[in-house]
Amino acid sequence: MAFDSVKTPAGKVESSLGGSVNYFSISAAPFVPVNIVAVVGEDYPKAELEWLNSKGVNTSGVKVAPGETFHWVGDYTDDLNEAKTLSTFLNVFEHFDPQLSETQRHCDYVFLGNIDPDLQHSVLDQVENPKLVGCDSMNFWITGKKARLVQLLERIDILSINEKEALELTEKGNVLEASEEILKMGPSAVVVKRGEYGAFLRTHQDIFLASAFPIKNVVDPTGAGDSFAGAMMGYLASSGVDRSMARTDTKLWNETLRQSILVGCVMASFTVESFSFDRLRELSSSEFKDRFVSLRSMVEVHPPKNLDDILCAGAFS
Amino acid sequence: MAFDSVKTPAGKVESSLGGSVNYFSISAAPFVPVNIVAVVGEDYPKAELEWLNSKGVNTSGVKVAPGETFHWVGDYTDDLNEAKTLSTFLNVFEHFDPQLSETQRHCDYVFLGNIDPDLQHSVLDQVENPKLVGCDSMNFWITGKKARLVQLLERIDILSINEKEALELTEKGNVLEASEEILKMGPSAVVVKRGEYGAFLRTHQDIFLASAFPIKNVVDPTGAGDSFAGAMMGYLASSGVDRSMARTDTKLWNETLRQSILVGCVMASFTVESFSFDRLRELSSSEFKDRFVSLRSMVEVHPPKNLDDILCAGAFS
Repeated sequence: MAFDSVKTPAGKVESSLGGSVNYFSISAAPFVPVNIVAVVGEDYPKAELEWLNSKGVNTSGVKVAPGETFHWVGDYTDDLNEAKTLSTFLNVFEHFDPQLSETQRHCDYVFLGNIDPDLQHSVLDQVENPKLVGCDSMNFWITGKKARLVQLLERIDILSINEKEALELTEKGNVLEASEEILKMGPSAVVVKRGEYGAFLRTHQDIFLASAFPIKNVVDPTGAGDSFAGAMMGYLASSGVDRSMARTDTKLWNETLRQSILVGCVMASFTVESFSFDRLRELSSSEFKDRFVSLRSMVEVHPPKNLDDILCAGAFS
Repeated sequence: MAFDSVKTPAGKVESSLGGSVNYFSISAAPFVPVNIVAVVGEDYPKAELEWLNSKGVNTSGVKVAPGETFHWVGDYTDDLNEAKTLSTFLNVFEHFDPQLSETQRHCDYVFLGNIDPDLQHSVLDQVENPKLVGCDSMNFWITGKKARLVQLLERIDILSINEKEALELTEKGNVLEASEEILKMGPSAVVVKRGEYGAFLRTHQDIFLASAFPIKNVVDPTGAGDSFAGAMMGYLASSGVDRSMARTDTKLWNETLRQSILVGCVMASFTVESFSFDRLRELSSSEFKDRFVSLRSMVEVHPPKNLDDILCAGAFS
């Protein structure tokens, strides 16, 4: 959980509410009850934690530590698809050592946010027999703690990662080769996030190309990837998908993953329409459903009745 | 028609066959007979024109002028999605003044390649009552002859243009606003090409998001956009689509446009797999059809049975 000071072509905000835990949990909560582990400083507004609770996010795992909350300062004015970090004040996050409650140790669905791979390992060590484990990471850990990150990949089911980071992690030149390589490292599914273009899913049986919902007025892309992952995991949890399905019921596994990614794209499309998670605060289920139906229809192609005729008539070799 | 000297991460070629007319016509020919207007120098191999003819491309409109063929020198080593032009030798192309034959004046389907908007006007002036007119352009003309280009847009049905150029032409910040603006300028459809991410279609009734077919080994992106446009126009012509349908039968108009864009994406995916149009030379109709079916299935999402339940259960506001 964090304060973000962000500048985008649409304007800027100082110390607005942010952090991947916020974006993730707010986006997952419409689908299932959520339980979070995080740390904030004494400056973090209690009312905001209460609001999260009212939305179905159990915040009893949020530790309030002496000192200030993590603060990120970033800039998107050159490129909406990539944040430029100007400053990072770790503050209370510097000594964050996530300890799970008894309830949390028995969670079926686990998502390891983008933190030090050592801590991601530690969290996973504390969970008993999860049904499905998702995970995020970033270039900082790919460069600095690659070995530990690669060890983590052996233990998880779904890696959600940016396109640039997927290429960096695998040292490959394109998403097809990179995703193939990541599957070899352990996960049963890789979701490559492509900003305004959408997402790419790779499993051992399937490739799915998801388009992002087109947005006229992108105010702030911060949190889009976390929202995407939150809604995706929330949808998967609500669907009861289990890690064993990746082998035993591949049809349902791939079908549900595809749906979860569409759900993720839709959620992210709302996130970018405001600074912080203001747009998500007021999001209604009918708005969500309309955009879901609309995005599905925007990628549909009716099979041409005469494709065979057309192709056979022509001059292929 | 041109010679291209191109460097990509996969290697380089010197004076290989290229030019948008080649890529376009080879990609359209599997769908309908094609008739081209172009100029080459005395150095252009006659056997290649004969080969084109054998593929269903009528080359009687190719003028052989004294001097050398247009020659483009480009580099993609930094970014496969954007060519860096190192040199352009116009040669015989400098004084190109396209004159249509009697047959060409009665063509139903016309595509105005990316040349000086004055010449595009002149070609269109020579065609009698076409059923459908497509058009391409580029940043050079957007910057240098914008007024004439905008006048041309009033006369055409489909503009096929790169994303960056669409933003430049309209001075808008995103594809949604840019495409809206371009529709106001005249065309009934705008196809925004997004390189490895696919294409975006906008009509007065519809938005279609097309994903590119993922390719493991992109050898050379040169000609991908021309191949895309060629296959798209070829498919539209073979389907008998007419400009009036944009008003009278919008369902069929949009459905056929969507199909044509998928066809274009598939053709372009083969083009980038080799230097020049080597891959297209050996392309079979079954290879094309397999990739078409495969790409369609890669974007499909089954509607979740329980979306209403899932969304209503949750914590939307």
